Amino acid sequence: MGGTIAMLTDFGTSDNYVGMMKAVIGSIAPDTRIIDISHNIAPQHVREGAFALLNAHTYFPTGTVFLVVIDPGVGTTRTPIAAQAGDYTFVAPDNGVLSYALSQFDSYHVISLTDTDYHRQPVSHTFHGRDIFAPVAAHISAGIAIETIGEPQSGIMQLPRPYLSIEENTIIGEVIHIDHFGNIISSIGTIRWNAEDRLTLTPIFDANNPPVRILADETSIQAGQHTINRLHLTYGEVPRGELVALVGSNGFLEIAVNQGSASERLDVRIGDRIQLHIGEIDATVRY
Amino acid sequence: MGGTIAMLTDFGTSDNYVGMMKAVIGSIAPDTRIIDISHNIAPQHVREGAFALLNAHTYFPTGTVFLVVIDPGVGTTRTPIAAQAGDYTFVAPDNGVLSYALSQFDSYHVISLTDTDYHRQPVSHTFHGRDIFAPVAAHISAGIAIETIGEPQSGIMQLPRPYLSIEENTIIGEVIHIDHFGNIISSIGTIRWNAEDRLTLTPIFDANNPPVRILADETSIQAGQHTINRLHLTYGEVPRGELVALVGSNGFLEIAVNQGSASERLDVRIGDRIQLHIGEIDATVRY
Amino acid sequence: MGGTIAMLTDFGTSDNYVGMMKAVIGSIAPDTRIIDISHNIAPQHVREGAFALLNAHTYFPTGTVFLVVIDPGVGTTRTPIAAQAGDYTFVAPDNGVLSYALSQFDSYHVISLTDTDYHRQPVSHTFHGRDIFAPVAAHISAGIAIETIGEPQSGIMQLPRPYLSIEENTIIGEVIHIDHFGNIISSIGTIRWNAEDRLTLTPIFDANNPPVRILADETSIQAGQHTINRLHLTYGEVPRGELVALVGSNGFLEIAVNQGSASERLDVRIGDRIQLHIGEIDATVRY
Repeated sequence: MGGTIAMLTDFGTSDNYVGMMKAVIGSIAPDTRIIDISHNIAPQHVREGAFALLNAHTYFPTGTVFLVVIDPGVGTTRTPIAAQAGDYTFVAPDNGVLSYALSQFDSYHVISLTDTDYHRQPVSHTFHGRDIFAPVAAHISAGIAIETIGEPQSGIMQLPRPYLSIEENTIIGEVIHIDHFGNIISSIGTIRWNAEDRLTLTPIFDANNPPVRILADETSIQAGQHTINRLHLTYGEVPRGELVALVGSNGFLEIAVNQGSASERLDVRIGDRIQLHIGEIDATVRY
Repeated sequence: MGGTIAMLTDFGTSDNYVGMMKAVIGSIAPDTRIIDISHNIAPQHVREGAFALLNAHTYFPTGTVFLVVIDPGVGTTRTPIAAQAGDYTFVAPDNGVLSYALSQFDSYHVISLTDTDYHRQPVSHTFHGRDIFAPVAAHISAGIAIETIGEPQSGIMQLPRPYLSIEENTIIGEVIHIDHFGNIISSIGTIRWNAEDRLTLTPIFDANNPPVRILADETSIQAGQHTINRLHLTYGEVPRGELVALVGSNGFLEIAVNQGSASERLDVRIGDRIQLHIGEIDATVRY
Repeated sequence: MGGTIAMLTDFGTSDNYVGMMKAVIGSIAPDTRIIDISHNIAPQHVREGAFALLNAHTYFPTGTVFLVVIDPGVGTTRTPIAAQAGDYTFVAPDNGVLSYALSQFDSYHVISLTDTDYHRQPVSHTFHGRDIFAPVAAHISAGIAIETIGEPQSGIMQLPRPYLSIEENTIIGEVIHIDHFGNIISSIGTIRWNAEDRLTLTPIFDANNPPVRILADETSIQAGQHTINRLHLTYGEVPRGELVALVGSNGFLEIAVNQGSASERLDVRIGDRIQLHIGEIDATVRY
């Protein structure tokens, strides 16, 4: 069994673009298995891609090469890079799309993909996914060390972090994703359920913000004009068709409708504020 | 070559959910090949998933593990199960989604997935596809016997069977699926063409209802306000843009438009009645 | 590692059709890797499929079997065929869908798929993708010579070639594809950038039309009521939201909006004329 390449793009699946990238990979690394994370990131929405990668990457096997192409600046001055972090390698344009996932590692090192021997010739001006990123990911998956494919570079471009503000009795975040079911996913996370109906919120993007412990039944959630009166564990705890707030499968506060679509129900868009009212945080529960 | 896992879900392909499930599978069973049946079952439509599985499963290789996650009750009291039937194993929530496919086997045995050693920890409350069903399917595909992953359970939840009524000169079914082409697929099946322009209808969901033999050129089909005057063999037997009724590739009566969309032409929805008028069935043709 | 089957269909991914084809392949050729080119060719649009195949096929590894099913005439008199060209094999209905890709080879030979031993029995009247094309492609990928699966046939059905007219100072083509991003792709190609801001247009479908050399900064492009004043190299060379004309990644003239959708901006459809004004072509630049 060869390695794994995990693909995340905004290319959609109606054209032949993803197929061409897989063909290039298959020609260079025939034993590599390809797993699609998604090809339906909204066109050019780098932050949506960064958030999808943040949540997905931890589930992949050791040695996985992540091939991430959301690339509005293709052919311009943005740099193609590869980053090694833990047991993973990430190949992408340096436009911030890796910054959320890489923020979860203590350290990583980055290579600018300057060695054109590992690119497909001729390199087009508009499809580096096929001509640079796919062949480089395939060569890495086939065993080439990333040091040999370019020049070291210090650091990567950082995206602004999702909005998250923790005050005395209110945590304010923003809508960061709306999924296939119409579930509204906020930047309020990562939250884990503990014993005794308590939750711990560990701000994923800010190591300086300490974890906060919350009592689940003292909470209320506000999104637009709607207030939801408590956190539940899962969708089916409320009647069919009713709004429900819960901690989603990646630890972010989420608003849903049981067997329905919250995004159809609420007039809420990406970037809108979501408030979690938690009574008070005092010294004994902040730790 | 390892085994095969066939996935059927309502997760769509725009999020990272399916990718995370495949990542979990790849970590546990790296030699297993994954084949997607579909990830675009309408959200929470358990019966649509059951019908897709009924038709697809017979085409898969011996030893295939079917990973079926249409799971509106995730995190509630519905039980995660695995069922062994013939040379196949099915892993799913016990909400009826397996009941159409399993009805085609003489016998099967069912395990409730109680052994948490085979689940991914921590198990979220809202994504058992990733945390329970995918790892269990992967362990089974990698060779673990299903007896070791939980407790035997007698029987599974049954979905109501699709409507089908056979009377003297009329067979009445319901619309059970509308496909990507706008073809309208009814519950009137399974029908096979025989010699001499005759068809045999063997009610797939009701062993007590005997097969019926029909003369194709004596039939007419009624859907909503429309009547189609005979059964054809294939789409191209009528002029482009015209309605056509035929026996679809899985043996169910289907209404289509040659190179067009029947669902755009007819005001017909899932659950609506479809009538097949067949003149008379007499003793000589009922057998 | 076994071979590669590349699939291109109009079946969509919401039904179980593609999954059934992959199940059939997996049963016959378990070591074959399957790569999806696309399953979202517009229903029955044979020419869109032919164009997608033309552009994609060159990226696939030696030995790839292309399984192409856009088949409005399924079950009628059109012939199922396999064609061998260079290191590739193509399996499809003989309706022209292979004609653009095969036009790129000096020679090819064609077999009519008459040997029913290699079909799945019973063969349905409406889904030859599952019952004829998939099993035949799988047998070929597993090593069966195409001569043994049917009778030689001379030539294949040809689709009309995309419109392309080269006059003194104007090259006229047609819109041949609109992609996921809303990029409008014309039949004006194949164009390659050379040194000194020059382009060479080598009409891909007409060997009698000689290559033409163009100066990029003397061009203007007209689509509907809009005129774009020069060719750029890539999207990001114009401000966000502005129209841009460029040579796309497969060498065809393309109209786009930087980080937006050209097809939403312009009232342009498949088949509409696109004009590339190039000043004059004189003897010194025509070669």
